[in-house]
Amino acid sequence: MFKNLFPKEFDFFDSFNKQVDVVVEAAEHFKTIVTKSEIDEESRKKMRDIEHRGDDITYKIIDNLNKTFITPFDREDIHSLAKKLDDVNDIINTLVSRMIVYKLDPTDTIMVAFADIIDNSVKQLSIAVKGLNNMKNSNLILKACVEVNRYESQGDKLRDRGLAEIFEREKDPLMVIKWKEIYQISETALDICKYVGHVVEAIMVKQA
Amino acid sequence: MFKNLFPKEFDFFDSFNKQVDVVVEAAEHFKTIVTKSEIDEESRKKMRDIEHRGDDITYKIIDNLNKTFITPFDREDIHSLAKKLDDVNDIINTLVSRMIVYKLDPTDTIMVAFADIIDNSVKQLSIAVKGLNNMKNSNLILKACVEVNRYESQGDKLRDRGLAEIFEREKDPLMVIKWKEIYQISETALDICKYVGHVVEAIMVKQA
Amino acid sequence: MFKNLFPKEFDFFDSFNKQVDVVVEAAEHFKTIVTKSEIDEESRKKMRDIEHRGDDITYKIIDNLNKTFITPFDREDIHSLAKKLDDVNDIINTLVSRMIVYKLDPTDTIMVAFADIIDNSVKQLSIAVKGLNNMKNSNLILKACVEVNRYESQGDKLRDRGLAEIFEREKDPLMVIKWKEIYQISETALDICKYVGHVVEAIMVKQA
Repeated sequence: MFKNLFPKEFDFFDSFNKQVDVVVEAAEHFKTIVTKSEIDEESRKKMRDIEHRGDDITYKIIDNLNKTFITPFDREDIHSLAKKLDDVNDIINTLVSRMIVYKLDPTDTIMVAFADIIDNSVKQLSIAVKGLNNMKNSNLILKACVEVNRYESQGDKLRDRGLAEIFEREKDPLMVIKWKEIYQISETALDICKYVGHVVEAIMVKQA
Repeated sequence: MFKNLFPKEFDFFDSFNKQVDVVVEAAEHFKTIVTKSEIDEESRKKMRDIEHRGDDITYKIIDNLNKTFITPFDREDIHSLAKKLDDVNDIINTLVSRMIVYKLDPTDTIMVAFADIIDNSVKQLSIAVKGLNNMKNSNLILKACVEVNRYESQGDKLRDRGLAEIFEREKDPLMVIKWKEIYQISETALDICKYVGHVVEAIMVKQA
Repeated sequence: MFKNLFPKEFDFFDSFNKQVDVVVEAAEHFKTIVTKSEIDEESRKKMRDIEHRGDDITYKIIDNLNKTFITPFDREDIHSLAKKLDDVNDIINTLVSRMIVYKLDPTDTIMVAFADIIDNSVKQLSIAVKGLNNMKNSNLILKACVEVNRYESQGDKLRDRGLAEIFEREKDPLMVIKWKEIYQISETALDICKYVGHVVEAIMVKQA
């Protein structure tokens, strides 16, 4: 909303839009990855490429934050938002690389369900983040954040189900160790999304 | 101490008192849970109910923080205190739900000892947090925070003992995986209590 | 750079120099530890002693931060820097104590490589932190922080290699559980170093 007052300043709103677009891309690519029983080099490369683009935008935001005197909202909120959106990107990338290291088949039922919830959650984050440049969007933002919380809570239940199943089903302790970690990282991804939602809500409330 | 100057403002002191009471309730309920070899549905429901009440108070504090112009102490300290007290609640609840998922017998010796230390630590936190509304309590607060640090250090040793024992005693690697995680979460609960203590100390020192 | 203006104030620059010296000492001692197949009581005692000295300096910095009105750079940056340098110390100490609890042979190839990278990273942090008292050092600081990032990235790859190897090589699931945790803690040590680098960069940029 203060956007037009500082036309020559670094456009934080625009950069956050770009950043959240990259996170959506990561979540979508992750959803594709869990459709095939092996993660090929191309999929991995694409995920790394998405992560690097995300890193670049994050770096640009933080760098401009340090150089800009007047910011459209609290400096520390800008920092948190940039940092935590980047964390979502990073953790999706970690999921992929860890499944490769562990030679896991990503078409595991729990994993497919996680990819879906993460994708849904990230799409709501996109709505919330993109709404920030106009106070009229406050209802839209709040609704999106409620959805993000709901997905996090779904993730909790899915992780519990995944842990219970893996300890029941798997005879090989090494497989238990691997999947336990993957399910817990997946759930943490949804925790971070929830945290991003809280940052967005806080920004919105302060601007009200 | 600034309390009476803003009689119609949201009462942060009162809300923190209520929040810490809920944390005490959680720790006490947890202590009861480890007296029985199985966690029944009623115990679980009670723990979830305590957690939800804690969530409500936390939400109210953060919400009012965002709406209130003048606060009795640093905004970020209020935010940290509310958030970290809630984390104590959450992690006690996680301990219970994880033991249920893993079908563990909570009367395990190490676990009983952890429940005791967590309960002791949380009771000192209650003294510290409730002391915040009057500067005359600074000695009382400092003493309570020293105790919280001491319990964290006891927790470190207990986790090390628990890990050493479980790797020695248990033949079933799946049981090792389960208890290792439970002991580490228990120790993290005490870390978070220690962190709450640091926030309280920082608030006190700034008001001196 | 503001150092000479407040000659009687607490010298934050000097304290950070001392703090980072202790971290270097910890990393060096850790490098020695991985040369012998068993961690003896003397090595452990020395590590604990280093950690305690680090704690004392950290406490002094935070304590003076709370008492000092004018600080050479942002209060929250001072707090982060002190806290995160202390975290580096703590995590190196945790590595040692966990390997003792797990009765592991620290001369493991991956571990020796980690000790080396951690030592390198911490030495770059020392250059960065010690450069903070003079703006003319900005290039030196930036170069050191780039190195710290590079070591973190090396650590990521080493952890992945370590995890892949341990799951391939080890038949005993208990050994997998132990080494997996140790490798992940080692990589987290390098993450924290990277974070310290970011704090130093942020301080530098704001002073420019």
